[in-house]
Amino acid sequence: MTYCVGMLLDAGLVCLSDSRTNAGVDHINTFRKMNLFERPGERVLVLMSAGNLALTQTLVSLLRERLATDGPNLYTVANMFEAARHVGDCLREVHARDGEALKEFGIEFNASLILGGQILGEEPRLFQIYAAGNFIEATRDTPYFQIGEAKYGKPIIDRVIRPETTLDEAAKCALISMDSTIRSNLSVGLPLDLLVLRTGALRVCSHTRIDAENAYFEMIRTRWGESLREAFHALPSPDWIPLA
Amino acid sequence: MTYCVGMLLDAGLVCLSDSRTNAGVDHINTFRKMNLFERPGERVLVLMSAGNLALTQTLVSLLRERLATDGPNLYTVANMFEAARHVGDCLREVHARDGEALKEFGIEFNASLILGGQILGEEPRLFQIYAAGNFIEATRDTPYFQIGEAKYGKPIIDRVIRPETTLDEAAKCALISMDSTIRSNLSVGLPLDLLVLRTGALRVCSHTRIDAENAYFEMIRTRWGESLREAFHALPSPDWIPLA
Repeated sequence: MTYCVGMLLDAGLVCLSDSRTNAGVDHINTFRKMNLFERPGERVLVLMSAGNLALTQTLVSLLRERLATDGPNLYTVANMFEAARHVGDCLREVHARDGEALKEFGIEFNASLILGGQILGEEPRLFQIYAAGNFIEATRDTPYFQIGEAKYGKPIIDRVIRPETTLDEAAKCALISMDSTIRSNLSVGLPLDLLVLRTGALRVCSHTRIDAENAYFEMIRTRWGESLREAFHALPSPDWIPLA
Repeated sequence: MTYCVGMLLDAGLVCLSDSRTNAGVDHINTFRKMNLFERPGERVLVLMSAGNLALTQTLVSLLRERLATDGPNLYTVANMFEAARHVGDCLREVHARDGEALKEFGIEFNASLILGGQILGEEPRLFQIYAAGNFIEATRDTPYFQIGEAKYGKPIIDRVIRPETTLDEAAKCALISMDSTIRSNLSVGLPLDLLVLRTGALRVCSHTRIDAENAYFEMIRTRWGESLREAFHALPSPDWIPLA
């Protein structure tokens, strides 16, 4: 599996993805799930993917091939809505090519994507794109999307993330959310890609590859667990339970 | 959906279940998912269920019918292993009766159970029983089971629960785990059943039905969220992210 999260804040975008893929527990590999499309000063887009790796890799190859063509591509589309449509269209091309063959082997066409970014002339935007190529856009009410193993790390995001959250706090929240997921689910693992896009910068502000040696993530792993246990012990226990 | 958790501690058993059922978001009802089988001083068993309500209710009716018969039943089985076998056998009877008919309507035979308790002559034991009637037993390494919407509330249990955890602390942890689940998933809801069985007591020590008026759960709801946010803000933010 996979865990990716994208957060749309007033200050910009924070995206975090893991890199574990598995085809059964005896077939675990490392593949990055974050792809960048950047023309500094003009546009910056990030695409994160979960699902069948053969499908999502094919999609990304197709998107990159298109960059060199005259047709619509991620370097030429006028805005992020058109970018989401283009990604959806390319995913439908993959489906048209591979969908039937997979079905014959009983394999589901399983792909989900988060597309975020900013193109000159509009604010940063964030989309979740489904296997059918349709998509939804994040709003101030729901300023984040998750794909893959989303449930373990959802409670902390629900409690912390607001559009006003700063980029560094959002990055911290994303890493805590990832830590909770990694601890409870073997199918999500290091290294991580943490990307920050500041509103208006139109280029990558920070792209950090986080492995087991990363001191900040190590601090999160250790201290968040301690903090949770401290917070847990600080709450009064129910007094109606007879202990003896 | 449903969320139920059972914890096996040195001091006894803590079980918590919600009561929301849904057949689509426009068909939401309240059904308790915790069933008690008690002969004070001799045995006490608790069964929690998730999955298709028609199946799990049929199972419980069958188990209760059997109590009045000479065949094996939950009041006569010699130990908890035999109790788990008996529940598994009854579930297979339900499958033999209903499985084919459901399949014709494309409905999965979906049922999962947690069975815990103590029978005179042995320590408390805890089992997770699958739809096929097979089961696993909790150990000191993995002293808890969850069924239903298990993922949201798993991280706090993984961090806190050990066999040495006291019953009141375990009850607090179960309620925090439930609160995280309810906040992030509409398909899990109040009221809750919280049951505590103390090792050796061979009867229910505490059975609390928790609704929105329950002051302790209201305290958990409010203060756990605050504690998490405080713990979150107390951790340093990453300092490599350029904020402007």
